[in-house]
Amino acid sequence: MTQAGSNAFSGSAQVPAPDGGGQPGRLMRAEIYEQPAVWTRLLHEGRDAAVRAAAAFRAAEPTQVVLLARGSSDNAAIYGQYLMQIGLHLPAALATPSVHTVYGTPVFPPGACVLAVSQSGASADLVQTLAAARQAGCLTLSITNDPASPLAVGAEAHIPLLAGPERSVAATKTYTSELLALWMFTRAVGGEQPDVPDLATLGEQVLESADSACRLLAERLTGIRRLLAVGRGYAYASAREAALKLMETSYVMTQGLSAADAEHGPVAVLDPQTPLLAFASQGPGTASMASVVAAARAAGAPVEVIGDGTLAGDSLPALLPTDVPPALAPLLEILPAQLLALELAVLGGNDPDRPRGLSKVTSTM
Amino acid sequence: MTQAGSNAFSGSAQVPAPDGGGQPGRLMRAEIYEQPAVWTRLLHEGRDAAVRAAAAFRAAEPTQVVLLARGSSDNAAIYGQYLMQIGLHLPAALATPSVHTVYGTPVFPPGACVLAVSQSGASADLVQTLAAARQAGCLTLSITNDPASPLAVGAEAHIPLLAGPERSVAATKTYTSELLALWMFTRAVGGEQPDVPDLATLGEQVLESADSACRLLAERLTGIRRLLAVGRGYAYASAREAALKLMETSYVMTQGLSAADAEHGPVAVLDPQTPLLAFASQGPGTASMASVVAAARAAGAPVEVIGDGTLAGDSLPALLPTDVPPALAPLLEILPAQLLALELAVLGGNDPDRPRGLSKVTSTM
Repeated sequence: MTQAGSNAFSGSAQVPAPDGGGQPGRLMRAEIYEQPAVWTRLLHEGRDAAVRAAAAFRAAEPTQVVLLARGSSDNAAIYGQYLMQIGLHLPAALATPSVHTVYGTPVFPPGACVLAVSQSGASADLVQTLAAARQAGCLTLSITNDPASPLAVGAEAHIPLLAGPERSVAATKTYTSELLALWMFTRAVGGEQPDVPDLATLGEQVLESADSACRLLAERLTGIRRLLAVGRGYAYASAREAALKLMETSYVMTQGLSAADAEHGPVAVLDPQTPLLAFASQGPGTASMASVVAAARAAGAPVEVIGDGTLAGDSLPALLPTDVPPALAPLLEILPAQLLALELAVLGGNDPDRPRGLSKVTSTM
Repeated sequence: MTQAGSNAFSGSAQVPAPDGGGQPGRLMRAEIYEQPAVWTRLLHEGRDAAVRAAAAFRAAEPTQVVLLARGSSDNAAIYGQYLMQIGLHLPAALATPSVHTVYGTPVFPPGACVLAVSQSGASADLVQTLAAARQAGCLTLSITNDPASPLAVGAEAHIPLLAGPERSVAATKTYTSELLALWMFTRAVGGEQPDVPDLATLGEQVLESADSACRLLAERLTGIRRLLAVGRGYAYASAREAALKLMETSYVMTQGLSAADAEHGPVAVLDPQTPLLAFASQGPGTASMASVVAAARAAGAPVEVIGDGTLAGDSLPALLPTDVPPALAPLLEILPAQLLALELAVLGGNDPDRPRGLSKVTSTM
């Protein structure tokens, strides 16, 4: 179908965002390939904001972090939850906004920092909850792609994503820049220099390897209606975000689960028409993937692995380098999943830039 | 198919658990119909344990609650999270066990109470995390169906479910008794007498109305492979638990989401072959269901509503009474979903008592 344009973008981080119209998925593809350049910009130009937010955090000496997010940003927040607990030994949990906005009972742990993560910075329930947190005496921080947004302005410190306008409805570059902003912030809180790894080169390499591999996989999987995406630890966020991308662009009903939760029932849905998409790169999380993979094999389900070769799957080659720190793997391992969602959508005759029934800013209360 | 046995159980709370073998779903059906009697037993015989756990809680003056659970119990824990935040204005969050067991970094908020919820009381990751919490100085509590289990013995106070042996792999009576134990505990912590509402009669009425209605709905939905289950607030737990039941017994790929999260992408999967199952009883959560229902209508998806008539669906009549306190609705609204999962499984030629690839106690680390 419309795959001809993809090579033109491969390895190039300077693709201008095209106008709407044209080939289905044109915006999403361009934004997927823009990611390495966005990361480089954020690592350099966002560094001061991350350090300032970390300084505010250290001065306030919060006892824990409450993350506040929806949609793709909620998946980034899950990554942040693991990062802060594992990296900083700091308790971190996700907020339940409806407790505030639907039931009218704002409750925040004493001494908590409330950190909102949002592409638009405009979702009404998050704005309202962040304001309640600030009024309750919590330190409030935010990470958004719009420094003029209510969440950016309403927080005591803000880290901008610097990702440029995101025009595809499916978030790609803002998701990975949220991951990176959370990583930079956490490093700075930990007193480490938010150093500048060469993530852009790694990202370009992964995109280049994944480009044709994911198109071939999409051809192999064309027509599937269901999929189970599984990861563990840091990769749990990747499984959830892959599921969201697949649902919103190619309408494949996908559940994104941790390996442990998958074993408590959901693995029963696996069958020859319901593949397992496993995230497995080096790191302690991957060991617990083995029994989910065994369940998939026993059910005759295709096993597709996005990883560094630690775990063998049916189709994809090792797409990730083996020497990536586990905490940074989520930035890279989501790239093939984004491409898979895009290719499946396009092969299915859908335009992932304009998913049915969705708009870019979702306003919920 | 094998629906003949169901009327024999209707309205009777004294059905003895049959031996394995025989009709598919015999154990699950018996345990579904046992629930009103189990609730009555727990309300009476479990009251002292709930009061003792609440006394230990009040003495320790915890600043917040961390809930620790997996599978169906994790869905009960989500209910507990809403209950404690809305009812007690007490911050409550779900633990991420892999942070402890996979990454080896136990982190608990200062002054937290850690409450484990588990049918078996034996899951290795929960046992290990609860022990770490106790060693870190947290008050530890547990709710299990086995007073001799490691989680029961390892916690400073324990509330037994008193549900009797659960022999179906799919948890039904232990799920609702976990909800009820959490409600009794929360009431007692709030200083209210854990009074004894006539839940059993309500439960029997719901089961009686739902029995044939859910069988008819299952016939209507036979062959479906995907479903989106949505609730808000307290009913978010019901949506997740309905999804788990449908996945593990009838292998229907079901996502259980809050209405707000559903709008951030997943509603795109709705189509004429992918129904929406909406939980909607009176209470502030239901208002935000309207836009999800509108999205389903626009996509041509069947809309099936488990509720009290507040929101109209395509097939099911109003199955719930309108005067149930919102915090108790989850006990009742899951009953039709359990029956639907059972009937869909049996109509599909599966035995929900022995789902493929699952065993009763799942041990994960």
